[in-house]
Amino acid sequence: MKKIINDPNSAVQDMLDGFVAAYPNDVKRLPGTTVIARKDAPVTNKVGIVSGGGSGHEPAHAGYVGEGMLDAAVAGEVFTSPTPDQVFEGIKAVDNGAGVLLVIKNYTGDIMNFEMAAELAEAEGINVKQVVVNDDVAVEDSSFTTGRRGIAGTVFVHKIAGAKAAQGASLEEVQAVAEKTIQNVSSIGMALTPCIVPAAGTPSFELKENEMEIGIGIHGEPGIERKEITTADEIAVELTEKVIADLGLKSGEEVAVMVNGLGGTPEMELFIVNKKVNQLLSDKGITIYDTFVGEYMTSLEMAGCSVTLLRLDQELKTLLDAESKAPAFRR
Amino acid sequence: MKKIINDPNSAVQDMLDGFVAAYPNDVKRLPGTTVIARKDAPVTNKVGIVSGGGSGHEPAHAGYVGEGMLDAAVAGEVFTSPTPDQVFEGIKAVDNGAGVLLVIKNYTGDIMNFEMAAELAEAEGINVKQVVVNDDVAVEDSSFTTGRRGIAGTVFVHKIAGAKAAQGASLEEVQAVAEKTIQNVSSIGMALTPCIVPAAGTPSFELKENEMEIGIGIHGEPGIERKEITTADEIAVELTEKVIADLGLKSGEEVAVMVNGLGGTPEMELFIVNKKVNQLLSDKGITIYDTFVGEYMTSLEMAGCSVTLLRLDQELKTLLDAESKAPAFRR
Repeated sequence: MKKIINDPNSAVQDMLDGFVAAYPNDVKRLPGTTVIARKDAPVTNKVGIVSGGGSGHEPAHAGYVGEGMLDAAVAGEVFTSPTPDQVFEGIKAVDNGAGVLLVIKNYTGDIMNFEMAAELAEAEGINVKQVVVNDDVAVEDSSFTTGRRGIAGTVFVHKIAGAKAAQGASLEEVQAVAEKTIQNVSSIGMALTPCIVPAAGTPSFELKENEMEIGIGIHGEPGIERKEITTADEIAVELTEKVIADLGLKSGEEVAVMVNGLGGTPEMELFIVNKKVNQLLSDKGITIYDTFVGEYMTSLEMAGCSVTLLRLDQELKTLLDAESKAPAFRR
Repeated sequence: MKKIINDPNSAVQDMLDGFVAAYPNDVKRLPGTTVIARKDAPVTNKVGIVSGGGSGHEPAHAGYVGEGMLDAAVAGEVFTSPTPDQVFEGIKAVDNGAGVLLVIKNYTGDIMNFEMAAELAEAEGINVKQVVVNDDVAVEDSSFTTGRRGIAGTVFVHKIAGAKAAQGASLEEVQAVAEKTIQNVSSIGMALTPCIVPAAGTPSFELKENEMEIGIGIHGEPGIERKEITTADEIAVELTEKVIADLGLKSGEEVAVMVNGLGGTPEMELFIVNKKVNQLLSDKGITIYDTFVGEYMTSLEMAGCSVTLLRLDQELKTLLDAESKAPAFRR
């Protein structure tokens, strides 16, 4: 295992400190917790938005904390849900009476712990709603998950719910637009290599030198198929066609595209994939409103990528375009 | 070699197409060239700024094309300088009579080809000046380079020269502030793994499972020392101390920090390094004005990082803060 860390047991703590050290005017770490919150939290007369999950997906989730996006992100250990008490601290830190929306990726551990935190918060009189992102079209059930997994499409939910909250919308309105985003976003990933969880020290799976896996999860959960590596164009078509089919996208519709790197993939390769994704959508008469190429939801140093499409209407376009000061999603 | 490409020979071409496909409202590719320019180039009454170099360092250099930063970036093949005719096309595309500044990383091939392009442009009556970035403190001479290499500090030169040009400064003024930036920026990198140039198919060097290399170049050029991997804190201290010593930084001075990933390093590890860089500078009474953590100047999928410090005065702070719409450096 080759990593630039001090100790597998302190990696998440060190990372959170290093994150706050990078953006001291924008974010704060709640003392004694793994919660990164906006420096000015709780913001007056605004619904608070809290997300989070296991670490190892950076810039998710702390990179999306900032004006116009999340109010707080709660970090668990690598690939492990944060505990209910940590999520509860996040909720308390961002609530100012307007209520709090939890944006949860669909993993059994996250669902359980965020729901428990919501109950703790409600017992203290905080109004909490939640949405569950399940954009991964690869498999229906998976290790650690009942139903579809939540992956890179979650970032669009953060952006759009965050923009709606920044407009002063009610908790019900913010929840509704988050749900609308979830209904209209789909993703699928692929990997060339596994990654190594620091505390484990060895990869959780292996891929042969000529092999890739289509539909892999962001924790290395099994996908649809292992097969010989094909060209970037064939990979882009396979991923994009699955997402188009899932969303039932038709000529004349408008989308946002995200070509997301899983951590170890050079940006060059992401742009090569984007070329074909763009061509394919154009050939089908689907209009690309905006494109995001980069690392948004990673799996440590895994080499691979995912393709996300978000079907847009006027409301979602306006919210996607709205200002965001989150370090990893400046608009 | 596991890569998401179509053909090693088309990788750069496909990437450039995919880049323009991602930002069609902001950039254009000059037909038949490897030049990415601002969509609105040449900009009226503004000095043009052109940079570039071998590909494989993404987001450098095309990611820095945009209002407030570069007017054009010229891409060579992977780790290979662009040819003089390509650079010449870039210069012509951005000149509107106010002249053009070339920002060149100090590699013998780049120097030769950019200088030849400058001569071609001058023969056509275009006023061209150039600056050479040589921020890498690791070694004095290197493979492909006489004198110090140019690495991640180049991004600060792009930003500051770009901001100065956006203010309507003269070519001489833009050149002067670029030179001032170069005098005040130093960097050094380290790697855990090599990378594979697509056309080569195999790594240009090897590192043992327990080995790292301090002072490595962004093309895998030899560094100062190969040794056993130490902790993130020790790595951060070694790199940062070398940069502080080179700049002669003293208590009370102000800097911008860049902790740059080389392509294959998880963001988690970069933040862990940043924690220690931040502590060390604070302990020495050096004030951190701003911090940049992420992938700015990469080496394909190489695992490793570099630390850059830029000594700031009021002028450089104002220019660093100025608006930039470059996709990889939004301010």
